[in-house]
Amino acid sequence: MDFKTTKLQFAIPDGVIYLDGNSLGPLPIAAVDRLGRAVTGEWGEMLITAWNKAGWFEMPARLGDRIAPIIGAPKGSVMVGDTLSIKVFQALDVALAMRPKRRVVLSDNGNFPTDLYMAQGLLRRWGSDYELRVVSPEDVAEAITDEIAAVMLTHVDYRSGRMHDMAAITSRAHAQGAVMIWDLAHSAGAVALDLGGAEFACGCTYKYLNGGPGAPAFIYIRPDLIDAVDPLLSGWMGHDAPFAFDLDYRAGAGISRMRVGTPPVLQMAALDAALDIWDGMDMNALRARSVELSERLRLGVIAAIPEWELASPADPAVRGSQISFRHAEGYAITQALIARGVIGDFRAPDILRFGVTPLYLGEGDIDAAIAAMRAVMEGREYACPEYQAQNAVT
Amino acid sequence: MDFKTTKLQFAIPDGVIYLDGNSLGPLPIAAVDRLGRAVTGEWGEMLITAWNKAGWFEMPARLGDRIAPIIGAPKGSVMVGDTLSIKVFQALDVALAMRPKRRVVLSDNGNFPTDLYMAQGLLRRWGSDYELRVVSPEDVAEAITDEIAAVMLTHVDYRSGRMHDMAAITSRAHAQGAVMIWDLAHSAGAVALDLGGAEFACGCTYKYLNGGPGAPAFIYIRPDLIDAVDPLLSGWMGHDAPFAFDLDYRAGAGISRMRVGTPPVLQMAALDAALDIWDGMDMNALRARSVELSERLRLGVIAAIPEWELASPADPAVRGSQISFRHAEGYAITQALIARGVIGDFRAPDILRFGVTPLYLGEGDIDAAIAAMRAVMEGREYACPEYQAQNAVT
Repeated sequence: MDFKTTKLQFAIPDGVIYLDGNSLGPLPIAAVDRLGRAVTGEWGEMLITAWNKAGWFEMPARLGDRIAPIIGAPKGSVMVGDTLSIKVFQALDVALAMRPKRRVVLSDNGNFPTDLYMAQGLLRRWGSDYELRVVSPEDVAEAITDEIAAVMLTHVDYRSGRMHDMAAITSRAHAQGAVMIWDLAHSAGAVALDLGGAEFACGCTYKYLNGGPGAPAFIYIRPDLIDAVDPLLSGWMGHDAPFAFDLDYRAGAGISRMRVGTPPVLQMAALDAALDIWDGMDMNALRARSVELSERLRLGVIAAIPEWELASPADPAVRGSQISFRHAEGYAITQALIARGVIGDFRAPDILRFGVTPLYLGEGDIDAAIAAMRAVMEGREYACPEYQAQNAVT
Repeated sequence: MDFKTTKLQFAIPDGVIYLDGNSLGPLPIAAVDRLGRAVTGEWGEMLITAWNKAGWFEMPARLGDRIAPIIGAPKGSVMVGDTLSIKVFQALDVALAMRPKRRVVLSDNGNFPTDLYMAQGLLRRWGSDYELRVVSPEDVAEAITDEIAAVMLTHVDYRSGRMHDMAAITSRAHAQGAVMIWDLAHSAGAVALDLGGAEFACGCTYKYLNGGPGAPAFIYIRPDLIDAVDPLLSGWMGHDAPFAFDLDYRAGAGISRMRVGTPPVLQMAALDAALDIWDGMDMNALRARSVELSERLRLGVIAAIPEWELASPADPAVRGSQISFRHAEGYAITQALIARGVIGDFRAPDILRFGVTPLYLGEGDIDAAIAAMRAVMEGREYACPEYQAQNAVT
């Protein structure tokens, strides 16, 4: 794989070094035409008939099959739709149903909060005897006991990039009879994955997969389990015969039962184009390149900016595809960097995050980013009042 | 309101008479540019910073405020996001929490099935003593007793266009202490609405509102109730401070708590453009025009095609903005009509549906559609083998 040519497939603005593909991937140039076709050629020209003629109805499954090899899953095991919050909710509900005698869901405080929030909501409806137990990431393995119904973790920490040992934790969960749910938000398209025997995985497509803002999420179910899944979010698109309009729900064939409502066709069109670049991708080569560039960034910053504290693991083997640092002025520094065209982002209270994505970054970009970071710090550009105003969203 | 000019704002293909706006509204021409701007100018140019700079983060609330006057709701009471199935699920869960001593949800067999399916899923988690009771539409009022926790109905029947008496049923529900949930899928943008004291309403934006395929849904909560709502689908975007990344959920201010995950920005851009046409819309004038055109279609077909059985109420006062007929060859007739450029749709087992949307239909279109219908029947065009093959999706 020659990652020098993949950069040409993205619309990166002149003067921008984009280190935030871990939050929102940039625009794949092919998405412009693909979306234009979906809008004028399909919606505009075919109108309602496009559900068949343009294959809209089958898109969630087709896109799931395109995502499958990226996460190391077989065809027919991945379905696209909704948001990651909803997909986590679906997975956790099924996991609890699989372990009716157990009452504890285990997660860690490095999980992305929405996973914890959705679990909190769901557990209320399962009953007051259900518990969400949240431990530190390093204590997860030990906390997996035979009390645990489901272990629900985000593989790569959204702030630090710390990566759980997927095989070891899944194995420990299974040894204790717990169901394993992995959130791949910061893994899909970032690292090579082997889901092993994990029962469920979910992820989003707008980060490393570049599917566009608000692109739909995906859910994976281990193939041998799919036919026994009885979905809580039993929407008509997951029905065995959606257009029979029966009054009673009957789960659809295979992974189709994880569909809920009418899928977001325009978002899926953009995602479809974004997935072109992943066809035949060698995930090991991508990972090797990611490590190479990440180490260049890590070592370069350590040498150039001693006052930034590394917030990511130094060892690439336990790190995803981002490098994070801590600084008390993290928010203002992020803003000053953006003004220089180096786009990373900030996570409260003091984390500067920089995503490393081989598809459109090379050594020159990393070196130029480090130079900009150094200039911002040496020139105290972050002290400029307009960068100091806290703004929670970015 | 001059509905002759509004037609110019839609991209209706030459030779097409579009009678399926009740299923998927046609493309508003403004959506092409708006979406193009969102893709290249916002996603492409601003990248992650567009969440602030382009106002993406606020779009679900802003679009909710644009939809509010169309459904007769005040600002700050409507939130956009997810699919209608999910929004119904959210509303019903809150309704059950409001009536903790009651165990029955009442609906009717004219409801769109996904509402029933989602209720079936949700009630399993509330407990085996909860019941979804489904009666005939004409029996709803009588079935509302003091056993009922929530009455959950679709205002306008998706097959026949039959319209419930919203005020009377809401009033009856309240007299019996039940919570009222209206699904406005076939009402929003189709009829003038007065939600009265109904606690909840949901709807979709890809039908009469023309938001595009898979456009997000909306949920309304009566303003005095919002602050007490504790959402089951407690996603991070509905958190009081999403970017504080707290480990515990805390419902956001007002209607924002009904947000769940990252919203579909590209779909929202198309919807935003589609809503332009609704600014300042006189819903009573729209309704009057809809009745005028619907009656022309109904009476014209009755005169021209006696073998079609009217499946809609003859009285416009109890009918939404569609006219349906029954015929054993309904599917094949629909296909033959589409081949002639008259696009309606078919609902099993024998319903031909024709949506009447004053925004882009006039007397000439109705008359030409009736002539095509008559020609299809007289020429037995529906007997052509290619139209006979059942295809469930259309």
